[in-house]
Amino acid sequence: MSGRGEFDVIRAIRDAVPMGGDGVIVGIGDDCAVLSGDDAEDLLVTTDLLLENRHFRPDAAPRDVGWKALAVSISDVAAMGGRPLHAVLSVALRAEHSGLFADEMLRGLLDCAARFGVSLVGGDTNSTDGPLVVCVTLTGRVARGKAVLRSGARPGDAVCVTGALGGSLRGRHLRPTPRVAEAAALVAGGDVHAMIDVSDGLASDLGHVLDASGVGAEVWADRVPVHADAVALADDDGRGPIDHALQDGEDFELCFAVAPERAPSLVASGLAGTPVAHVGTVTQAREYVLLDCVGGPRRPMNRGGYDHFRRG
Amino acid sequence: MSGRGEFDVIRAIRDAVPMGGDGVIVGIGDDCAVLSGDDAEDLLVTTDLLLENRHFRPDAAPRDVGWKALAVSISDVAAMGGRPLHAVLSVALRAEHSGLFADEMLRGLLDCAARFGVSLVGGDTNSTDGPLVVCVTLTGRVARGKAVLRSGARPGDAVCVTGALGGSLRGRHLRPTPRVAEAAALVAGGDVHAMIDVSDGLASDLGHVLDASGVGAEVWADRVPVHADAVALADDDGRGPIDHALQDGEDFELCFAVAPERAPSLVASGLAGTPVAHVGTVTQAREYVLLDCVGGPRRPMNRGGYDHFRRG
Repeated sequence: MSGRGEFDVIRAIRDAVPMGGDGVIVGIGDDCAVLSGDDAEDLLVTTDLLLENRHFRPDAAPRDVGWKALAVSISDVAAMGGRPLHAVLSVALRAEHSGLFADEMLRGLLDCAARFGVSLVGGDTNSTDGPLVVCVTLTGRVARGKAVLRSGARPGDAVCVTGALGGSLRGRHLRPTPRVAEAAALVAGGDVHAMIDVSDGLASDLGHVLDASGVGAEVWADRVPVHADAVALADDDGRGPIDHALQDGEDFELCFAVAPERAPSLVASGLAGTPVAHVGTVTQAREYVLLDCVGGPRRPMNRGGYDHFRRG
Repeated sequence: MSGRGEFDVIRAIRDAVPMGGDGVIVGIGDDCAVLSGDDAEDLLVTTDLLLENRHFRPDAAPRDVGWKALAVSISDVAAMGGRPLHAVLSVALRAEHSGLFADEMLRGLLDCAARFGVSLVGGDTNSTDGPLVVCVTLTGRVARGKAVLRSGARPGDAVCVTGALGGSLRGRHLRPTPRVAEAAALVAGGDVHAMIDVSDGLASDLGHVLDASGVGAEVWADRVPVHADAVALADDDGRGPIDHALQDGEDFELCFAVAPERAPSLVASGLAGTPVAHVGTVTQAREYVLLDCVGGPRRPMNRGGYDHFRRG
């Protein structure tokens, strides 16, 4: 009965839910659902629940908690190539949170909303004796039929990521900057076949893209952009910086598969001021491998990634 | 710092959130937000968070938990006169819930979804060591400009409710039947000026309508439909059945203000098979009073209602 992993539970849910439905273009299984909107745009919906002791520590600054609660959903909308629009907020607060903490958390969320053009339009407030809960659901819009899914990666595509990865637990994970402008610039340039945001770790999240697309990939370790925080963590714990970069998660960067001829200009120019790295290539063979460098020896990718039930 | 009541927190949130915003027709403060949809229909969004030990007991049947988690949001869409459409589900489960409990809870939610034409399109799964959390966000559609708000009640309107009220904690609260068909029939007949669903108790929820509309009301105790569960609870605890009917909450019936000339036919015919009672009248004077019967002595209404911080 117990002991199923997070991804097993998600799979069970996906299997139990009927396909299709009125106005459903893409249901469970991508960063956002894609729903019929109007003649010009489709509607996106995503939900994320943050828990004290899981996604932030009890001593986290309430402004950061509020920022993060919305930012992680905005990152999901960005990963579809969309623009975020309307958010609703459900919280469960202990009595000690009902004053200044609630005000400051809301301030952080509204700072993030203002920065990314989101309106907070509703919510639900509850008390709890347990861990603080902050659940945000966000809608967005994307040009009709243009949502970038996980399932479109093609053999030969370049695998790219924005920014730098790893070690976000040193603090960055509480103040992510969703890559909305970067995704918009990327999509405007065309030939983007698949995209995901890096929440569980590049190794895990790229794995989701490969699974959804029915392809494999090789990733070149020496091309993966390693954040200084990953190096600092590696100094402390003896794991390699590249392991942190591939497996830590909560980077909220974009990972995407793009026509290979676009990669050089993306690497040269970045996207909306953010660097882009070309870290691998999509393969027809459904193998997922890590190489030290292009042409180096191949070893199976350790998907790692955060399983909320197994490690939580 | 601490000790603010739930409605104080909600008020603080409402005060802090900027008005308006791109595509926002009605923001925080009604049963649903109303957002720009397409040429024919506006979009509705509502979110509700259920917590173990607050909204259901640890020994509640998981199918009931799943049903209730969606039904309470469908009830919010009904209270706007809308039809429910797409839901997302965020959960925090303890390890012991990751097997059969999760499957059964999902089954209950999907039963409710199938009954009311809702598609589950996304979610977020987390583990917790604390109380189980189930958060549903639901979208709906309503004919453009036709959402029934809390703010439209007019002096002279008849105050009506569907079904019977009180004592839902005896079990009904876990298996509410959202009044979607009733609301659709009501709206189709015209002249509905304000509506809310009864979640906190008729006294509290009608109070929200009066506050939003800037009016008062008198309610006739002898016309309030008292559920058999309210009578049974009153037998146990010595409070009056009418107090249970007015203040228990979690009935998920509709309370609405309608042109007075419609009231007799509503009472005679009901709505979609559900009885309708005419329980009071909206007044210009901003007093909220309870009378034993039409023309009886007037006393201030005890709003009661469930405050999650004060009583929880």
